[in-house]
Amino acid sequence: MNSTAPLHIGNHPHVSFPEGVELDCGVTLAPVDIAYCTYGRLSPKKDNAILICHAFTGDQYVAETHPLTGKPGWWGRMVGPGKPIDTDRFFVICSNVLGGCMGSTGPRSLRTDGQGAPDELWGTAFPPITIRDMVRAQYKLVRSLGIDRLFAVVGGSMGGMQVLEWAVTYPQMMLAVMPIATAPFHSAQNIAFNEVGRQAIIADPDWRGGRYWEADVVPARGLAVARMMAHITYLSEEALTRKFGRRMRSGPAGGQGPEGPVSMFGDIFEVESYLRYQGSSFVRRFDANSYLSITRAMDWFDIAADHDGELTSAFVGTAVRFCVVSFSSDWLFPTSAARTLARALNRAAANVSFVEIETDKGHDAFLLDEPDFDRTVRGFLCGVAEHAGLS
Amino acid sequence: MNSTAPLHIGNHPHVSFPEGVELDCGVTLAPVDIAYCTYGRLSPKKDNAILICHAFTGDQYVAETHPLTGKPGWWGRMVGPGKPIDTDRFFVICSNVLGGCMGSTGPRSLRTDGQGAPDELWGTAFPPITIRDMVRAQYKLVRSLGIDRLFAVVGGSMGGMQVLEWAVTYPQMMLAVMPIATAPFHSAQNIAFNEVGRQAIIADPDWRGGRYWEADVVPARGLAVARMMAHITYLSEEALTRKFGRRMRSGPAGGQGPEGPVSMFGDIFEVESYLRYQGSSFVRRFDANSYLSITRAMDWFDIAADHDGELTSAFVGTAVRFCVVSFSSDWLFPTSAARTLARALNRAAANVSFVEIETDKGHDAFLLDEPDFDRTVRGFLCGVAEHAGLS
Repeated sequence: MNSTAPLHIGNHPHVSFPEGVELDCGVTLAPVDIAYCTYGRLSPKKDNAILICHAFTGDQYVAETHPLTGKPGWWGRMVGPGKPIDTDRFFVICSNVLGGCMGSTGPRSLRTDGQGAPDELWGTAFPPITIRDMVRAQYKLVRSLGIDRLFAVVGGSMGGMQVLEWAVTYPQMMLAVMPIATAPFHSAQNIAFNEVGRQAIIADPDWRGGRYWEADVVPARGLAVARMMAHITYLSEEALTRKFGRRMRSGPAGGQGPEGPVSMFGDIFEVESYLRYQGSSFVRRFDANSYLSITRAMDWFDIAADHDGELTSAFVGTAVRFCVVSFSSDWLFPTSAARTLARALNRAAANVSFVEIETDKGHDAFLLDEPDFDRTVRGFLCGVAEHAGLS
Repeated sequence: MNSTAPLHIGNHPHVSFPEGVELDCGVTLAPVDIAYCTYGRLSPKKDNAILICHAFTGDQYVAETHPLTGKPGWWGRMVGPGKPIDTDRFFVICSNVLGGCMGSTGPRSLRTDGQGAPDELWGTAFPPITIRDMVRAQYKLVRSLGIDRLFAVVGGSMGGMQVLEWAVTYPQMMLAVMPIATAPFHSAQNIAFNEVGRQAIIADPDWRGGRYWEADVVPARGLAVARMMAHITYLSEEALTRKFGRRMRSGPAGGQGPEGPVSMFGDIFEVESYLRYQGSSFVRRFDANSYLSITRAMDWFDIAADHDGELTSAFVGTAVRFCVVSFSSDWLFPTSAARTLARALNRAAANVSFVEIETDKGHDAFLLDEPDFDRTVRGFLCGVAEHAGLS
């Protein structure tokens, strides 16, 4: 490697699969590392494991301090002793997705197809991956932990896509699933937003055709713009108005722009300051080529397309119990998408409950303090546990 | 000037005001050129003039072939002989906004404050302008045409902001106004989207601190990303789904990416191809510093803030007739914003009608084929004309 990348890969607990994973594109990616965290204890019967699938820019650090950012785990309010996903009762697993940048094999891993220079990274030569490929890698992890059947698979947003893919690909592998704030396919609008993010990254000269590590740089400006835009889509208009409204703050130069006191670069709105912070902090923890790879996987996601265009067909005969959750002000993965999913499950005679949580917090609501949502998660898992006779 | 900018200013019909315009920021910008087009004939009584205010990236070429793009005028279906804004009856005026780049004074004009080098352009030293400043310049244009009172002021989106500012600043100057697909203030979400666009431009090294003309370049990549993102906000999710769905087309390399047939840069979705085209064609007709200047003016727009936080106060005692129009699937300037405006007008005892047009076309609906909208425009103007005894 020519340099130490500014964003360090670090040493995350992981398991290695030398045989790799056969991908949807036909390529066998080998070896494959999957980095993961666990919480709670696996029961002697190994029947209390819950797999949590993280969202696009999430990672495996669900309920502990993040080793890179020093921030609390992203779902610490949901996962822990006595929490809705109760680690006194359940054994919780979360792995960094294939294609990610927090220890699992992805574009920032060493290239292993023998076609690059020695010690070259994958970069954009990383094979295209799908949500199903991510799930295949998770399946190997779960089996490697000695678990034949999961109690449940739970996840929001892109995590919810993985949840659905689990239910379709390995229906015998779990009792229940909770797809949250997600959809059975990525919409044209979702694809459009992802594409703008990708173009922002690719437009950054520091991206260098995807080989930025060679110059010891990262496409920080492009990645920050991508993040800023995506962040808007995670919040509702109401939430932005409530949090920021039209309040202003002094600009970077104390209210004066580069051209003096009268300038179009003077004071800025608080919402701008917030977005700039979101953008700049993101580039310190996320890899630009992972951004490209994973957004592409999301865009390709379409459960029905893999079943002759019939969403219902994907679920016919399933014994899995579904709890589909949406949030009323989520416009990225709106309730209408969840309803489409729930209806298909009903037509497939699946055991499904569908809950729309009333909130003004938008898509991000699944990460935030929403007591109704907490009760839904706790209630569903307790119900399934009782029904299954889980001790 | 060190170079001919790749984007030529061109020679647009205009009027010059040597005395300039006193701006909200306290600076007097002088001289000021305002480029404009007219359609139809001014009546002997000079009582049949309609001022059309264009949207953010629009211009004065309402109903004729655009001299730069060769495309038809942006509101050709609305303005012309026998059209809803009937040029057999009305004299129609539209001017390029102050801060624009189609002939009116803006960041790409020669710097006239004596502080730059000879023949230097304004660039980011262009004074910050507001929607009211744009309207002040339009007022001078209208008076220079010998018109003491307009029949109506009409405009959509940022054009609607100007319409409202006209009604508040010069209430004696018109019989009627039609603010369309607009709001009495820019919301936190609107500001957020604008800010991402600005950051995309500023992040482009070819922006060169706003002095890109010196190097004979334009920040084409950043400007294209800004345009792509903005374009998504102009369309509804339904419109994107109807137009593109999840259909794919061959990628730039005939379905093969730079890394060969198995690549994350392979085939692309049609919606991506569409957005890329929107981005690349935009940079040929729009100036990046104008983008910064005008989006800032939009962000600052807040009618209530100029009236002690009371929107109603802005309109008390007005004799102007208002027709407020919104579109049901517009999420950038949603019906709720129009309703806020209509309620304030009602409380101010103004003469107001409020029409929400049912459509799935989103914010851009005011530019597209919407028969209900055409009927609303035609009907309102005819009603006002009849009431006023216009011949």
